[in-house]
Amino acid sequence: MTTNRQWLLAERPEGMVGKHIFEFREGPVPELQDGEVLVRNLCLSFDPTQRLWIEDAESYLPPVKIGEVMRASSVGQVTASRHPEFADGDLVQTDGGWQDYAVQAPGGIGMGLNKLPKGTPPEMALSILGTTGLAAYWGMLDLGKPKKGDTVLVSGAAGATGSVAGQIARIKGARVVGIAGGPEKCAWLKDVARFDDAIDYKNEDVDARIGETCPTRVNVFFDNVGGDILEAGLNHLALHSSVVLCGAISSYNAVDPVPGPSNLMNLVVQRGHMKGFIVLDYMDRVDIAIPDLLGWATSGEIAYAVDVQQGFENIPDTLNRLFTGKNFGKQLLKVGDPE
Amino acid sequence: MTTNRQWLLAERPEGMVGKHIFEFREGPVPELQDGEVLVRNLCLSFDPTQRLWIEDAESYLPPVKIGEVMRASSVGQVTASRHPEFADGDLVQTDGGWQDYAVQAPGGIGMGLNKLPKGTPPEMALSILGTTGLAAYWGMLDLGKPKKGDTVLVSGAAGATGSVAGQIARIKGARVVGIAGGPEKCAWLKDVARFDDAIDYKNEDVDARIGETCPTRVNVFFDNVGGDILEAGLNHLALHSSVVLCGAISSYNAVDPVPGPSNLMNLVVQRGHMKGFIVLDYMDRVDIAIPDLLGWATSGEIAYAVDVQQGFENIPDTLNRLFTGKNFGKQLLKVGDPE
Repeated sequence: MTTNRQWLLAERPEGMVGKHIFEFREGPVPELQDGEVLVRNLCLSFDPTQRLWIEDAESYLPPVKIGEVMRASSVGQVTASRHPEFADGDLVQTDGGWQDYAVQAPGGIGMGLNKLPKGTPPEMALSILGTTGLAAYWGMLDLGKPKKGDTVLVSGAAGATGSVAGQIARIKGARVVGIAGGPEKCAWLKDVARFDDAIDYKNEDVDARIGETCPTRVNVFFDNVGGDILEAGLNHLALHSSVVLCGAISSYNAVDPVPGPSNLMNLVVQRGHMKGFIVLDYMDRVDIAIPDLLGWATSGEIAYAVDVQQGFENIPDTLNRLFTGKNFGKQLLKVGDPE
Repeated sequence: MTTNRQWLLAERPEGMVGKHIFEFREGPVPELQDGEVLVRNLCLSFDPTQRLWIEDAESYLPPVKIGEVMRASSVGQVTASRHPEFADGDLVQTDGGWQDYAVQAPGGIGMGLNKLPKGTPPEMALSILGTTGLAAYWGMLDLGKPKKGDTVLVSGAAGATGSVAGQIARIKGARVVGIAGGPEKCAWLKDVARFDDAIDYKNEDVDARIGETCPTRVNVFFDNVGGDILEAGLNHLALHSSVVLCGAISSYNAVDPVPGPSNLMNLVVQRGHMKGFIVLDYMDRVDIAIPDLLGWATSGEIAYAVDVQQGFENIPDTLNRLFTGKNFGKQLLKVGDPE
């Protein structure tokens, strides 16, 4: 392949994202400077946080500029290197973006450029070992800190982060209840991921079902959703409970501000803590998390699902799958095969 | 005086509280059992949290029942004692309620029954040394923990808790900005309580003024108000900031749920913590807090204002002053004089 296909951000989104805000371009494969590495993307990661990156607003990373390649985590293979620590054929995790070829260097913003052990399946590197798995790990263990016998509630529980977060809590001896959309996802949570119970927000009264499934109330609430789901969870907090805010996917595509929970006073009454975090802050401790996650994944203690789409032309529409709940497990798209 | 005047809770409130939900009754002064003490109330405390006590809802104290004397913190004098540790004439702090005479015993719910040094002015014992001053002390020092040079934002800043909280932050070396209603309260904050700046929420754009007065953003936000004011403060959080939820007075009389802040995602982006607390949890550490507060009050390092109403018949209407912003400083009502 001698051309580089790219999807650029063409305009700022209003409401739901889609193909219309991105622009396709083909160009030459870029040249390298000293210290740089050319990465051929094999697999792209799709993450709710990408919706924040394309807003024209201050956030934890600078916004993607209009006319820039859309930022995305990826796994790729080094095809040329002018950096002494990287060689042709190396498998790497990086923010390769929506393109075939990315010029990367270690130490950049976001993921940086990290070598993966030879033969690591890209879909494992981008799911349980990627930012979503790491967010589950640190959010649950560094902030939620469930104790044996605690009740842990997870929203977005069939998603890439929620499913791993809930299973880590189960490994730590907690009773785990997940909230997900639809009977298929709820069955997967109970039968495959071994959650103690599951609530189908599309077909059940979430607030009432939290009350039923968490009779001793909720000690740790790991929330990926925000809005009404966050409010329902706050209604059932136990004394000295922790609410871990991992994201608020319900609001990312909203044109008008989505009202927050009307019951934050429950944090006062229950002496609760609500804590936000960004997984990138934990990247210097990746050596602690990865062996745990890899061990749990290979032993089968943690089940993880991946949803691998195909076709470079389908990249923009694949992002939408996250916000419509179409994805089942970690959303990925395969761009190429390793050599 | 041989009769006991009382205000009882007659019905659950809907919306703003008022005289209509309370009932006046006169009866005999009650008899004592062994272990009990008869307290003649001298001064009653009015606190926003009383609005929570009369809801028919689970909270940090059991609700006041219909037909019961309205619960209130008070300072009183012992007029009869069948408890070995209390004697006639002792000055005490307790939950004496809306009545002349209360039968109390140590170790009850709420404030319990605590002896005060002879001669302590009731208005000092119920303000800076009372639950509002103690809430300011523990909320700011145990949860907010401002560091030298931090910017601290306080809402309800002219109130009994907010004013003390802000001044403690100033003593600890922080820059302190207060939000209060009207030019008179704002002038008091700047000129008397020595806040660095004040924002008049009745006449100014709170969000814009926080941006102006907190150019390096907010490290600690001590919130007594909730709703729009909480949302405005969350817009200006600094990295790793703390939000201390002390109360949400804007919602206490609302008939419909008041929407929460739409920007809780700022806790994620700024890696913030939001923490709720109840001052009663700190009562076992009152020996640590009172000497500090007393020292600051007597040296003039902390200014405090009290608003002392008169007349037993005015008790129910005095509660409303808290929710209309009529009070200036700690709201009290004098019931009697010490002997």
